[in-house]
Amino acid sequence: MSEPAPLLTGHLDGAIRDGRHTMEVRVYYEDTDFSGIVYHANYLRFMERGRTNYLRLLGADHRSLFEETQDEAPGFAFVVRSMTIEFFRPGHMNDVLEIVTTPQEVRGASITLLQQCRRGSDLVVEARVRVAFVSGGKAQRIPKSLRLAMESGRSKVGAADAAGARRQ
Amino acid sequence: MSEPAPLLTGHLDGAIRDGRHTMEVRVYYEDTDFSGIVYHANYLRFMERGRTNYLRLLGADHRSLFEETQDEAPGFAFVVRSMTIEFFRPGHMNDVLEIVTTPQEVRGASITLLQQCRRGSDLVVEARVRVAFVSGGKAQRIPKSLRLAMESGRSKVGAADAAGARRQ
Amino acid sequence: MSEPAPLLTGHLDGAIRDGRHTMEVRVYYEDTDFSGIVYHANYLRFMERGRTNYLRLLGADHRSLFEETQDEAPGFAFVVRSMTIEFFRPGHMNDVLEIVTTPQEVRGASITLLQQCRRGSDLVVEARVRVAFVSGGKAQRIPKSLRLAMESGRSKVGAADAAGARRQ
Amino acid sequence: MSEPAPLLTGHLDGAIRDGRHTMEVRVYYEDTDFSGIVYHANYLRFMERGRTNYLRLLGADHRSLFEETQDEAPGFAFVVRSMTIEFFRPGHMNDVLEIVTTPQEVRGASITLLQQCRRGSDLVVEARVRVAFVSGGKAQRIPKSLRLAMESGRSKVGAADAAGARRQ
Repeated sequence: MSEPAPLLTGHLDGAIRDGRHTMEVRVYYEDTDFSGIVYHANYLRFMERGRTNYLRLLGADHRSLFEETQDEAPGFAFVVRSMTIEFFRPGHMNDVLEIVTTPQEVRGASITLLQQCRRGSDLVVEARVRVAFVSGGKAQRIPKSLRLAMESGRSKVGAADAAGARRQ
Repeated sequence: MSEPAPLLTGHLDGAIRDGRHTMEVRVYYEDTDFSGIVYHANYLRFMERGRTNYLRLLGADHRSLFEETQDEAPGFAFVVRSMTIEFFRPGHMNDVLEIVTTPQEVRGASITLLQQCRRGSDLVVEARVRVAFVSGGKAQRIPKSLRLAMESGRSKVGAADAAGARRQ
Repeated sequence: MSEPAPLLTGHLDGAIRDGRHTMEVRVYYEDTDFSGIVYHANYLRFMERGRTNYLRLLGADHRSLFEETQDEAPGFAFVVRSMTIEFFRPGHMNDVLEIVTTPQEVRGASITLLQQCRRGSDLVVEARVRVAFVSGGKAQRIPKSLRLAMESGRSKVGAADAAGARRQ
Repeated sequence: MSEPAPLLTGHLDGAIRDGRHTMEVRVYYEDTDFSGIVYHANYLRFMERGRTNYLRLLGADHRSLFEETQDEAPGFAFVVRSMTIEFFRPGHMNDVLEIVTTPQEVRGASITLLQQCRRGSDLVVEARVRVAFVSGGKAQRIPKSLRLAMESGRSKVGAADAAGARRQ
């Protein structure tokens, strides 16, 4: 917010491939509790980082369509309306978790995202998150350009999954 | 953990009445984010405090039935398996939120709790939380005494709600 | 911020006695890390709660002198400029810590506070915290009324300590 | 802890160059508070990530000398004994901060680190952190190999600074 985004932050922000956003998160002391594992609420922090970077990268890829909202402080953001979470396995200190964010349903005023925290091939946590789109501090209809960007992502996810299925 | 529970901590731990646990939580800087409201993941911290104190008070009220588990470090605890959360209204700096925890379904190996974060008569956040019971570091069948304590709570909730309905 | 402070929150906010503010804080899961003890940064959260409540109670006790600033959002606050912290003993899950805040030096534009986290007679963490006074979003000279309120506190601390010393 | 460190995590862990460890940290919602800036205690989380990764990379570079301690759970770690922090400038949402960790004094039982949080050429936060070395859950004399690794780092820092000074 305080200055233009640095040029090379892909190592921090993750990437969108086949319509899915993935990024890696290291588990530090701050993320664990005395029972020895990651404190459950901290997965929501990891998933919010994923959503923030997903929106950041969508905005970078489709700069023209985000231009009208860019002037308004504090910019645009997702706001969580509801979520369903399952905790399958414990995460541990020093784990590198992959946070995968996939758009599931894009409506006029809300978006449902599937978010997973994975460790290698293990699914650690999975959530379905319904978010509203906020710009200039207010919930708004999702801009058509953003909706198209996310929907084109969804069709790529479908195609990639189908291709993956054929390969097996 | 490090020493016996202090004698007078009711002002911190809340109370169980009519089968429901309630406690108050003040919103501090640490709980908010730059959008001006409580950061969504922090309601999970508030609700975990509610569950911890609910179990603490159940244990204090039914000391004899918790005695067998008390020797095992690090004691017994609820571990969250899944939850569904709705965010209805924003919480703000300095708010005093009431965290209300009500047992909904008590099974052999898991318990479903309804948890609400209220501000006066406003419902801010509501969650259904399925927890397993862990003692000595392992998930276990819920001790019969704890199950009875929670179920007697549930019937009181039902009776209190019915009485409330009659009064209206 | 969103509504008038509830009437009876002394059990949450602690109290000012002999110029010192004290409040109790329960250690929850969220405060610990996998090494089994309180994560070091979380003592700063506890001490910030102490400062916030100290200022809240000073404001309540001296309402007339805070009236001019009360209209300005987001109100007045302490902002930390520097601090020195010593970690003497580990804090543990379920501990009840007493957070003690004592004004040490009150200058025109900054205040130095001594803050301690105590468990019974044990000193767990001690910090010297230099804060600026912010109102309406900007650092300001400390209002004379606030300075007098804190200085009268300091003289009481001195008197109480001297009385305590005489008693021994 | 739960599995061998993944092979390629340099983008997460930062790097040691000229005896200094540097890594980048993105500021997310979770790191800010309603005053609009980074919550002060969260810089301690950033600096702890820096220390953890500094020790991780020292261990990877000097694997033979860490071998004896590697078997002991939960491994070796720095534990903070005291710190002095100055907050020079506010950090903001979306900032990319560089966390720079430099060994300053390496003694038998404790190490003093200089840690900076930088944004471009601006110094945001600076701390001097005295840590003890813990292995197998207990404070210990710092292994000679670790001490040599850090001291060789210190001499490189000195040489690099002198070279930098000559260039100006």
